Amino acid sequence: MKIFSDATVNESALKLLREGVAPHELVRPQKLASSVLHKSEADPALGEAEVAFGQPDVAGLAEAWHLRWLHLSSAGYTRYDTPEFRAFAAERKLIVTNSSTVYAEACAEHALAFLLAQARCLPQALRTHAANGTPEWLAVRQAGVSPRGQSAVILGYGAIAAHLVKLLAPFEMKITALRRQPRGDESLPVVTPEQLPAALAQADHVFNILPDNTASRHFINDERLAQMKRGAVFYNIGRGTTVEQNALARALHSGQLAAAWLDVTDPEPLPDNHPLLAAPNCHLTPHTAGGHRGEDETLVRHFLANLRRYLAGEKLQDRIM
Amino acid sequence: MKIFSDATVNESALKLLREGVAPHELVRPQKLASSVLHKSEADPALGEAEVAFGQPDVAGLAEAWHLRWLHLSSAGYTRYDTPEFRAFAAERKLIVTNSSTVYAEACAEHALAFLLAQARCLPQALRTHAANGTPEWLAVRQAGVSPRGQSAVILGYGAIAAHLVKLLAPFEMKITALRRQPRGDESLPVVTPEQLPAALAQADHVFNILPDNTASRHFINDERLAQMKRGAVFYNIGRGTTVEQNALARALHSGQLAAAWLDVTDPEPLPDNHPLLAAPNCHLTPHTAGGHRGEDETLVRHFLANLRRYLAGEKLQDRIM
Repeated sequence: MKIFSDATVNESALKLLREGVAPHELVRPQKLASSVLHKSEADPALGEAEVAFGQPDVAGLAEAWHLRWLHLSSAGYTRYDTPEFRAFAAERKLIVTNSSTVYAEACAEHALAFLLAQARCLPQALRTHAANGTPEWLAVRQAGVSPRGQSAVILGYGAIAAHLVKLLAPFEMKITALRRQPRGDESLPVVTPEQLPAALAQADHVFNILPDNTASRHFINDERLAQMKRGAVFYNIGRGTTVEQNALARALHSGQLAAAWLDVTDPEPLPDNHPLLAAPNCHLTPHTAGGHRGEDETLVRHFLANLRRYLAGEKLQDRIM
Repeated sequence: MKIFSDATVNESALKLLREGVAPHELVRPQKLASSVLHKSEADPALGEAEVAFGQPDVAGLAEAWHLRWLHLSSAGYTRYDTPEFRAFAAERKLIVTNSSTVYAEACAEHALAFLLAQARCLPQALRTHAANGTPEWLAVRQAGVSPRGQSAVILGYGAIAAHLVKLLAPFEMKITALRRQPRGDESLPVVTPEQLPAALAQADHVFNILPDNTASRHFINDERLAQMKRGAVFYNIGRGTTVEQNALARALHSGQLAAAWLDVTDPEPLPDNHPLLAAPNCHLTPHTAGGHRGEDETLVRHFLANLRRYLAGEKLQDRIM
């Protein structure tokens, strides 16, 4: 069997991949995908593979007559998340999985790090050298608010949200999640889009983990922000395109939102003169939420574990189509 | 009954206190304690009180012949933590409680905020505007390490440590604690000072929650730092005096410690030319770990709850002597 992989991984992870797929043949393209965020070019090597691991070109997949299973090396899958591709995959009986489990732990920990940095006023506290008892000191000292018992809404329920809910358990928060298609395996109450405004009106914290697709584009806009509780905190560890960023900047300036913690923006990085960079209490990390030491190796191990399941005819993890 | 209180609290908390102690008489000194970190002056009003709430002068307590119960408005109690005062309290049958429960939740959340900010490289990630794929970006993206399954040692087991252990539960860490006098009510394995070097050698994270007293002064010194695992992370939310700060700066420069997160120093704030301010990966907050919105009111409510127990002859919370 030929296994095509255009996944961009380091030497050590590539060695792991080569050894792990043996005795099957690993086929590498001439040009690697430079990033999950950029489309890669069609590759003739894909034409003979039964399994593909990486970010293969959507158009090129039409020529991949032998392909049975596509494992994406990312959690996001915008390019493949179209009615056309879904119809194509269904017609070809192509199984599609992604790597969301690889990034779930780091993403959930990043979201909790944001929540606690906000709760403990870390940006302010790490910056000040104010002496004990001064007004500046008191402003930081007495601004902390425990998340315990507070409300949260998670937009998008998948592997990241499920892990985040576990990490939040000791805080006994009231958490609900929005999911496009509830499946009954959720570990918390799920709201429909119709019920969302009422849930947002109660939430002290709104975690956005929505993927990028036509339905989610600018999901967070003026109307949605106005539905939120005044003084709520907004977190984005999904995709930047899901937020109308000028509306977000306005909500921060007006105090409708107390703060925003964003790991993703559109574009990345933001241009120097972008309104969000001047908005109060807007904290940005550069799309590092899913990152972690040994990330490439984790990615390969996740694929290899699914390959073992594939060869044994078992159910695959992180199946999306 | 007369209840003396020199606790420095805001108007709203003082109103709560006055109303809460009624029909008993609240006696306020002429000069309030300016801070829990400074000793207050003796006050004649203390002489007639059965209960005292605040930070009364140790010498003045000798004249407080009617005093049966002293409730300290802080978690730390250095001034009272001496063999002489303990003997005095024992002889007078004086009950002494502190306010550690008031600060436990905020302190534990502060410690977890530190841990996750470190795990997710927040200081670096919040500062950089590096573009996806650049070497600077990769350095941040691939530096995160999940606390899951890592080891931690907590120095000092009390209300804060117990709460921290609860918050850390989802991370399934291997946690041990050092406690001067194990009481059997600990929620995790406790090590003795003799067993500490072996525990430190294994720990990825060392949380220092030691109070300030003669035994804890410079407890963290060159020898102790050398016992730690290379690349460990050190957190201090106890008292600054428990750390030999030049030794800590050296350990950061040498890489023996990967980072330090300190909410307390000696003195506070540190002078501008202090070696710790120039040490790599040394993150400082200005003694705000226990702070939270409504702190004064929480403090008064905690005293009033203990007052109710005292009047009912029940066991008091946070008893230290």
